[in-house]
Amino acid sequence: MLNIVLKGGDVLCADGQVRQTDLAISGSIIAQVGNINETADRIIDCRDKLLIPGFVNTHTHAAMTLFRSYADDMMLMDWLQTKIWPAEENLTGEDVYWGTQLAIAEMLKSGTTCFADMYFFMPEVAKAVAESGIRAVLARGMAGVAPTANQALAESESFYKEWNNGADGRITIMLGPHAPYTCPPDYLKKVTALAEKLKAQIHIHLSETAGEVAECQKQYGKSPIALMNELGVLDHGVLAAHCVHVSSEDIAIMKEKKVRVAHNPGSNMKLASGVAPVPDMLAAGICVGLGTDGAASNNNLDMLEELRLTAMLHKVHRLDPLAIPANKAVDMATCKGAAALGLDHVGKLEPSYKADITILDMKEPHWHPRHDRLSLLTYAANASDVHTVIVNGKVLLDNHQLTTIDQERLLAEVDRRGLRLVKN
Amino acid sequence: MLNIVLKGGDVLCADGQVRQTDLAISGSIIAQVGNINETADRIIDCRDKLLIPGFVNTHTHAAMTLFRSYADDMMLMDWLQTKIWPAEENLTGEDVYWGTQLAIAEMLKSGTTCFADMYFFMPEVAKAVAESGIRAVLARGMAGVAPTANQALAESESFYKEWNNGADGRITIMLGPHAPYTCPPDYLKKVTALAEKLKAQIHIHLSETAGEVAECQKQYGKSPIALMNELGVLDHGVLAAHCVHVSSEDIAIMKEKKVRVAHNPGSNMKLASGVAPVPDMLAAGICVGLGTDGAASNNNLDMLEELRLTAMLHKVHRLDPLAIPANKAVDMATCKGAAALGLDHVGKLEPSYKADITILDMKEPHWHPRHDRLSLLTYAANASDVHTVIVNGKVLLDNHQLTTIDQERLLAEVDRRGLRLVKN
Repeated sequence: MLNIVLKGGDVLCADGQVRQTDLAISGSIIAQVGNINETADRIIDCRDKLLIPGFVNTHTHAAMTLFRSYADDMMLMDWLQTKIWPAEENLTGEDVYWGTQLAIAEMLKSGTTCFADMYFFMPEVAKAVAESGIRAVLARGMAGVAPTANQALAESESFYKEWNNGADGRITIMLGPHAPYTCPPDYLKKVTALAEKLKAQIHIHLSETAGEVAECQKQYGKSPIALMNELGVLDHGVLAAHCVHVSSEDIAIMKEKKVRVAHNPGSNMKLASGVAPVPDMLAAGICVGLGTDGAASNNNLDMLEELRLTAMLHKVHRLDPLAIPANKAVDMATCKGAAALGLDHVGKLEPSYKADITILDMKEPHWHPRHDRLSLLTYAANASDVHTVIVNGKVLLDNHQLTTIDQERLLAEVDRRGLRLVKN
Repeated sequence: MLNIVLKGGDVLCADGQVRQTDLAISGSIIAQVGNINETADRIIDCRDKLLIPGFVNTHTHAAMTLFRSYADDMMLMDWLQTKIWPAEENLTGEDVYWGTQLAIAEMLKSGTTCFADMYFFMPEVAKAVAESGIRAVLARGMAGVAPTANQALAESESFYKEWNNGADGRITIMLGPHAPYTCPPDYLKKVTALAEKLKAQIHIHLSETAGEVAECQKQYGKSPIALMNELGVLDHGVLAAHCVHVSSEDIAIMKEKKVRVAHNPGSNMKLASGVAPVPDMLAAGICVGLGTDGAASNNNLDMLEELRLTAMLHKVHRLDPLAIPANKAVDMATCKGAAALGLDHVGKLEPSYKADITILDMKEPHWHPRHDRLSLLTYAANASDVHTVIVNGKVLLDNHQLTTIDQERLLAEVDRRGLRLVKN
């Protein structure tokens, strides 16, 4: 017997077309898309609703929700040195657990079913992921210049061994060297050796700011992408966050090495980092997913906003209204994002794919009239339209209510902890 | 006795600070901000809610909601000539009435209490405004090159006489010459003569695209702003939509003539028009409000999105994270917008101001923790957080429910009409 049948919704099918049909879930898997007459444990009426693959947030620092709205409209280094780093000094493992739960609550309520995280106290993050039911790709952030450099390598290895493929296969572990400017070549060699040993992939920040690229050129005579290539970092399956300041030579390297990109338009706009050459990357055939970055630099984890910004920012930046059309942006927010995280059979509403599904209510005025549903999703929808969310076959958001997280307790915890962390 | 007391909310006061306090409404006016012990007809519990002046949408074409999602990701002229203009040919007065009601429903539900509109069948628009209870500044769009050129002038005059200061003073009428490229100098002289006669102000599109400015330079040897100045258009109180491609000389003229600007970042991004030099206009002391433009080129009427885009787009465009901070963007979306429309005592939560108030619920995860409420409003909130909306002292949205519009009937009407309009 089927576990769940989603009945009569408008389904974004794997061919990119939206059709009114049914969708059946068996265990953690999509069993069927089409007219379904079989019975099931649960039937959900999806008329007037849009079913899409769950959003994949390819780059965030989940627990930084605790610093949401703490410091904005500042120069990057001032922001880091006077605000974020001192506050992060106060973080405990418990804070990270609750901050991550806050992020997961917000992500589920806005339709995200999978996220890639880089932070610290990562076993606490994995615990939050395991308990909540969401899917995640986790990396212990490592800075070679920090006193914790060697400890971070050891923690990454034990974290990988304990949690990779954990929580019913919902958790994948990557290695997380923070960035070339915090990880010198010798340290990156240790990271690649560990990647080789564990067969783990790598999540890293690359070429986020012009200053960082100029500094790399000055110090090593090459771009961060070229330096990573020389050090062998790109040989292990790399998820590269940002890639704002990349040249056509960089893009050629990225293409050759199958580097996958996490594009974070909201963070890049708010921090004034610049506009990544995403149309060029797409033209080169590079896999580009979307991410929110941390809530301290965004300040939410709303993938619908990133989807919309992706479709709009590149149009105005290139002065080309055809730069990234709605359907391409939706792909980047869903199946391309899953591919960017190296996940198999995630990101499409198709039989044999993981049942990671976001169901949006189309009843509000901004969904009318409905000439084109993907256009409405991209340019008109908002996060609160997300009605029900299914991950790995389990309903985690049911008619706007979280099923695995006690929201009231969560908000009380994070309010208390958030205020404590920023006290001098 | 007071009519309404809003009790214990976090109030964005006229000095820009947020304080937990009470707010009293008497008739259409804010009577008091501070601790209130008097009784009232209605007391609304505003704990855990943020009270801000209602958003002012300084530029839209409300009835174009009917074309929402009909045609996107196209070149501007292709979009207009093959899609929008043929569909507009099919519009009836009744369509415009229902399309405007749809826009008003969406605007109220997302916290907008006043909008500036330019379209046709304007008495139908005024009727929708009068019935719904929202505040509006309306202009009959006029194109001097169209066969309806003289009729539009006559309609503008009768519309002004019938509706200016109508609906309990909620409606103001402006004259709406569409743009310099559709209104030749001789026609604009007739418009300014009518403005002079009626003492009416002017709402016009200026310098939206680079192509339009280049064409104006070629034809008249000057920029659209300079041409308007020469023709006397700027002497009558002008609300200028877009102003994307303006030079420093243009900005000097705008400053001298007290031109007020409707900045539409969402539309400018989606149509790839360019980025308006808003930081320069603000530095020159020009009054800049925010607008959504029509829903065919946005595709929603969500002022929170325009507020966020304003705070984010100019940062990345100038590579300056301090370009437009949250509090300045909030001003542009509220009190500066009211000033841009020439409205008196609208746009602040202060005694003697009109009771146009938007109340946002801060209960969702993306509002936690709360280090800074204006930052949360600007960078994290979404339209569905709008809980209750008051215009001119009347509750028009009550706990997410429209009080003056039958939403179910409305959506059935616009769905039917929207599909009819685009049939070939």
